Amino acid sequence: MSKATLAAIAAVSAGAGAAATVAMYSMRPSDAKKDVPTTTTTTTVSTTTKPSAPVPASQVFMQTSTPTPPTTPSIPGTALSTLNAPVNPAGLFEYGFPGPVNDLATRQALISSFDRRLRNPQWVVEHITPQSLSQRDGDRKNSAFLEDAQVPEKFRAKLKDYFRSGYDRGHQVPAADCKWSQTAMDETFYLTNMCPQVGEGFNRDYWAHFEDFCRRLTTRYPSVRIVTGPLYLPKRDPADNKWYVKYEVIGNPPNVAVPTHFYKVIFAEDGSVGGNVALGAFVLPNAPIPNDKPLGDFEVPVEAVERASGLEFATKLPVQRRKRLCAETSCSIVVKEYADRQKAFAKGPSRSNSN
Amino acid sequence: MSKATLAAIAAVSAGAGAAATVAMYSMRPSDAKKDVPTTTTTTTVSTTTKPSAPVPASQVFMQTSTPTPPTTPSIPGTALSTLNAPVNPAGLFEYGFPGPVNDLATRQALISSFDRRLRNPQWVVEHITPQSLSQRDGDRKNSAFLEDAQVPEKFRAKLKDYFRSGYDRGHQVPAADCKWSQTAMDETFYLTNMCPQVGEGFNRDYWAHFEDFCRRLTTRYPSVRIVTGPLYLPKRDPADNKWYVKYEVIGNPPNVAVPTHFYKVIFAEDGSVGGNVALGAFVLPNAPIPNDKPLGDFEVPVEAVERASGLEFATKLPVQRRKRLCAETSCSIVVKEYADRQKAFAKGPSRSNSN
Repeated sequence: MSKATLAAIAAVSAGAGAAATVAMYSMRPSDAKKDVPTTTTTTTVSTTTKPSAPVPASQVFMQTSTPTPPTTPSIPGTALSTLNAPVNPAGLFEYGFPGPVNDLATRQALISSFDRRLRNPQWVVEHITPQSLSQRDGDRKNSAFLEDAQVPEKFRAKLKDYFRSGYDRGHQVPAADCKWSQTAMDETFYLTNMCPQVGEGFNRDYWAHFEDFCRRLTTRYPSVRIVTGPLYLPKRDPADNKWYVKYEVIGNPPNVAVPTHFYKVIFAEDGSVGGNVALGAFVLPNAPIPNDKPLGDFEVPVEAVERASGLEFATKLPVQRRKRLCAETSCSIVVKEYADRQKAFAKGPSRSNSN
Repeated sequence: MSKATLAAIAAVSAGAGAAATVAMYSMRPSDAKKDVPTTTTTTTVSTTTKPSAPVPASQVFMQTSTPTPPTTPSIPGTALSTLNAPVNPAGLFEYGFPGPVNDLATRQALISSFDRRLRNPQWVVEHITPQSLSQRDGDRKNSAFLEDAQVPEKFRAKLKDYFRSGYDRGHQVPAADCKWSQTAMDETFYLTNMCPQVGEGFNRDYWAHFEDFCRRLTTRYPSVRIVTGPLYLPKRDPADNKWYVKYEVIGNPPNVAVPTHFYKVIFAEDGSVGGNVALGAFVLPNAPIPNDKPLGDFEVPVEAVERASGLEFATKLPVQRRKRLCAETSCSIVVKEYADRQKAFAKGPSRSNSN
């Protein structure tokens, strides 16, 4: 796969998605072998070339509630005197570790990781099965959008940020995937599971059909896991031929970033222990998309989502267990008839709204 | 302090910095009391209102090298059967935890945290003292810019990204602060200590004078700690009155974000154990700044940097120990005579360059 994939994704517009029939797995073997950190900690311990780091980060940041060793900032140099260093940069952490902290929220039906700078989740993971989708105990009419008090106030996305912004409060894990319990459904309404999404033509249309595609996968696969999240991709300005990331920030003062794109990485499991996993990665622009646009146009290599998001997916999944989802099954949306959609809209509140 | 501060900073241009004579400490008491996570982990444990999270994140993500508990994805529901949940979203982590991982690097003279998505550090901390600055064993002529092999290849900033980009490889911790050892100085040349900075009028001029200001603080304070890093701030588009973040991404394919602004949070210690700490926070645009622009124009409340960066500073520093740096000392740059600067430039390589 060419390294220009990220650029290619960025260039995806609603009208003309880049065809992404790429050799998805050719790059995975070397990837899987890489010894990359995949823990929740921010500490990385690795060998550097030259010059070397005299104090491993792991010694400085113990995984305790007090991450910094006591230092005596008033007597500079003593802490590291054995190294003959006249300074002790780690002493700063006595005043608190800067972070970033990625607020994890574990709900019944989802787990989310929150980006305090952009006030959006980085990813939200969910799990659906034929059984979970067949249970119908929750109704979105009983659910209300909620600010997430787990996030410190100054980093929190607020209901008022979305109000009159022109964007939907777009679920990352769809409410419709969590009908098996009212509580599970209610929990999808936290703003930590939400991003500003274009409503007409996207959240209420193509993106909804895409979510429906994911649910329909359970007719073939007994267990489907999905990671969903926002992206902020560059595009080339024809005026100067340079690449720029540009996104709106809603709220007054500006608070919540409006992603340029959204990704889903889908893990469709075959139901056997250590069995095969069909992987599919998709990147869609946060913009109206015509219903006749093939879903396959938005398929990308998993690594493209990794490069764009700074995250890693499936690093522990052996290559021999991986299949390509869109080779095993038809990756296409089913658009409900206009009349049916109108009926569905008339019955209850719209799937998400900007108020 | 008004919440519009972030917007105000964003509006700062080189020509007209927002005056930031704000009541810096009026907001700290409530802040200091807040029980916010300040560890390096991404786990947050807190009480939610309604609905509640049945599985605390801390139980799911233990701080070990294998952050995810074994699950049996082939038999969905069994893992959480006691909760009557038909799904187990945490089972995804069997394939690897998505991150984000913030690569920490601990060097002799600095500690940096790296943003894998933007390919820039989030922050770099350093420590300077009269003693450390008086030692002169390092010379930048012997140092070379280095890619940081600690960062996985696909997330790494590359030398070729900067090549002919038009931007300097701008040190966050200045090489000149680490003359006490050649190794310490060499280590400031890792790209994990670097961001794309405008050269003329900024990195080689006003920003350099600002770094000099920090060093001069050691004539009054026996120990000075500095956190430096990039920001990506929105500004209002007069055309539609909306706020947008826009930044260039250099490299081909595009790889490293060009920050719109840079911050420094300065902790000037009085030299006694548990003594006073004079705090100063500054946000400067990544743009040419006239030398006659007062440094005080770029002073902002610490909280403004926190909101803009998603980070937190000094959460563990009691309010009664805090002083305001620019109230205790004159916050102003000293511009070297043009001839002297020319001489300095002629003597050695420029402080940073884009090749």
